[in-house]
Amino acid sequence: MSFASSLPLRCGGAIERYALMYETYGALNAAKSNAVLVCHALNASHHVAGYYADDSKNIGWWDNLIGPGKPLDTERFFVVGVNNLGGCHGSTGPASINEATGKQYGASFPVVTVEDWVEAQARLADQLGIERFAAVMGGSLGAMQALSWAIQYPQRVANALVIAAAPKLSAQNIAFNEVARQAIMTDPDFHGGDYYAHGVVPRRGLRLARMIGHITYLSDDAMMEKFGRALRNGVLNFHFDVEFEIESYLRYQGDKFADYFDANTYLRITKALDYFDPALAHGDSLRKALAPALAKFLVVSFTSDWRFSPARSREIVKALLDNRHRVSYAEITAPHGHDAFLMEDTQYHGVLSAYFERMARELGV
Amino acid sequence: MSFASSLPLRCGGAIERYALMYETYGALNAAKSNAVLVCHALNASHHVAGYYADDSKNIGWWDNLIGPGKPLDTERFFVVGVNNLGGCHGSTGPASINEATGKQYGASFPVVTVEDWVEAQARLADQLGIERFAAVMGGSLGAMQALSWAIQYPQRVANALVIAAAPKLSAQNIAFNEVARQAIMTDPDFHGGDYYAHGVVPRRGLRLARMIGHITYLSDDAMMEKFGRALRNGVLNFHFDVEFEIESYLRYQGDKFADYFDANTYLRITKALDYFDPALAHGDSLRKALAPALAKFLVVSFTSDWRFSPARSREIVKALLDNRHRVSYAEITAPHGHDAFLMEDTQYHGVLSAYFERMARELGV
Repeated sequence: MSFASSLPLRCGGAIERYALMYETYGALNAAKSNAVLVCHALNASHHVAGYYADDSKNIGWWDNLIGPGKPLDTERFFVVGVNNLGGCHGSTGPASINEATGKQYGASFPVVTVEDWVEAQARLADQLGIERFAAVMGGSLGAMQALSWAIQYPQRVANALVIAAAPKLSAQNIAFNEVARQAIMTDPDFHGGDYYAHGVVPRRGLRLARMIGHITYLSDDAMMEKFGRALRNGVLNFHFDVEFEIESYLRYQGDKFADYFDANTYLRITKALDYFDPALAHGDSLRKALAPALAKFLVVSFTSDWRFSPARSREIVKALLDNRHRVSYAEITAPHGHDAFLMEDTQYHGVLSAYFERMARELGV
Repeated sequence: MSFASSLPLRCGGAIERYALMYETYGALNAAKSNAVLVCHALNASHHVAGYYADDSKNIGWWDNLIGPGKPLDTERFFVVGVNNLGGCHGSTGPASINEATGKQYGASFPVVTVEDWVEAQARLADQLGIERFAAVMGGSLGAMQALSWAIQYPQRVANALVIAAAPKLSAQNIAFNEVARQAIMTDPDFHGGDYYAHGVVPRRGLRLARMIGHITYLSDDAMMEKFGRALRNGVLNFHFDVEFEIESYLRYQGDKFADYFDANTYLRITKALDYFDPALAHGDSLRKALAPALAKFLVVSFTSDWRFSPARSREIVKALLDNRHRVSYAEITAPHGHDAFLMEDTQYHGVLSAYFERMARELGV
């Protein structure tokens, strides 16, 4: 969907004209009360569920959760997935043509924030005729958007589902992002962000960024369970090619990512993560930041998530309780680490099923 | 010290002629019973304590522990520090001239192991007239050498001090090493390891490797305590230069490291870490691997160390106890993470003081 009016951004600038790629599932009811917005995290997109007729292998990233008869049942809810502004899955981003110059944005594409994404999503909702979402939900960075929606548009969010999140990044979280950014920015093929004009992409940097990311998405135990110290060829080779299975996995993931993801988008998404800190404008009080919220909240964390540990989710829960907001909290015992929010887990999906079931009953859908 | 006889290596090859840079502190007693070998970890060296008359700022890396009147008292013990084979602090390594070719080794320098280092250190001990060490000690990778000494030369080690160690790396540990290696090896200035001939060094890769390393050396809490989310200039700038203090710290550490450390050495040291697994040759039984040891052991871990957590040290303690070996174990409550082994901490240094005091009494030194 194209937007012709200028979108002011937190950086002080604006995007004059832009498009957002989105996908919907199910049908919006007559009361327009059954819409659920699903916000994506780092590398995902608007394609949250199902597959396309001509591309049956490209399954939506949250397909185990969203679909007919699934915990978020598209026979009852109208689900909206949207690629965020600055993304590389069809929405206006650094690789898009800047109409003012006729060239790709590249380095000139602004640093966008979680708050900016919410503003852009709100305009999309306007166009879709959705005054109030039954729920806004997401995991990780997606959850930060759900949290920000509840703050920025209290009247427009009935429920906020905040999964595997933190109210702001720790120094260690920022550190991992910074190493990833440095890997990209010091790649000689980065050309200050204007690599499109050189016909190259900073593949080496993207590859390293993804490898670092993957380590933080998995728990130590899950990695040990999945790969252990298994050797690819059964013996130590005393060279620097792949020896351990975990090396093979990381290189594969890095290569695959570098094939499709835009480096400028990666830089901006990590910045959006680093910047997110709703308490900052309220004297570091998350309680005050969340005071305006009117939504009911479901907060979910996973025991083995060391990136955004349960303790970080509990900070959110405490701030909500301090405001006497309505909040349900589930701490799921799961071995997978941060990635658990994407996995099919009986306990986890059970919680979400029950929550959506209650919502559906309340809405009469 | 130069060695003219060939040193066979675990990789199947050998180093024909080599030199080891070492430093000693205190005096070897007449009975030659008071020698302590201090093994270094990743980026350290033979220079374990004190400073040189002409370079007063270059203080030894374990100076808070080693010296006159310190926990390892050089007025009672004869301390030996040695730069390992393959290093870049004076011992023969990848940047050294291979006498067979007249050129720098570069990529042709073999992949050396912890066991190889112990063999080389044993030859140094022979030359120094030390038949049996009062103690072999180290932290992290240095501790793996102490453990390996106790296995390879049971008669030559009276005490093994194994600090902040693991009996083998986890998949996550290997993963971090692999990303660091990939950062170096994909740097265009790496030239397959023969960058010396091109008059360049893979600075970008070394810098990233060090940044990744630093994240794993510090605890999340310590990083939050030290840097938090503090902004360098007090405001968000919406650009990609340094904004958060943690970014500044990592870039500084990375730049400094890239100025002095050899990339080929870094690759080999991470491989030595990955390969270390004494249980492997014993059907994965650490108990069996440690069966030959005759030393008394002191094992020390730190509560906030997430790289080699206390649970990993306890695996070593359990294997020692299963052998009915003599072992003391201290789990130190410290906030600093893996780096805690380098820090001055009352409880930690108290344990080491007491241990060395007992040793000194037993030796009558």
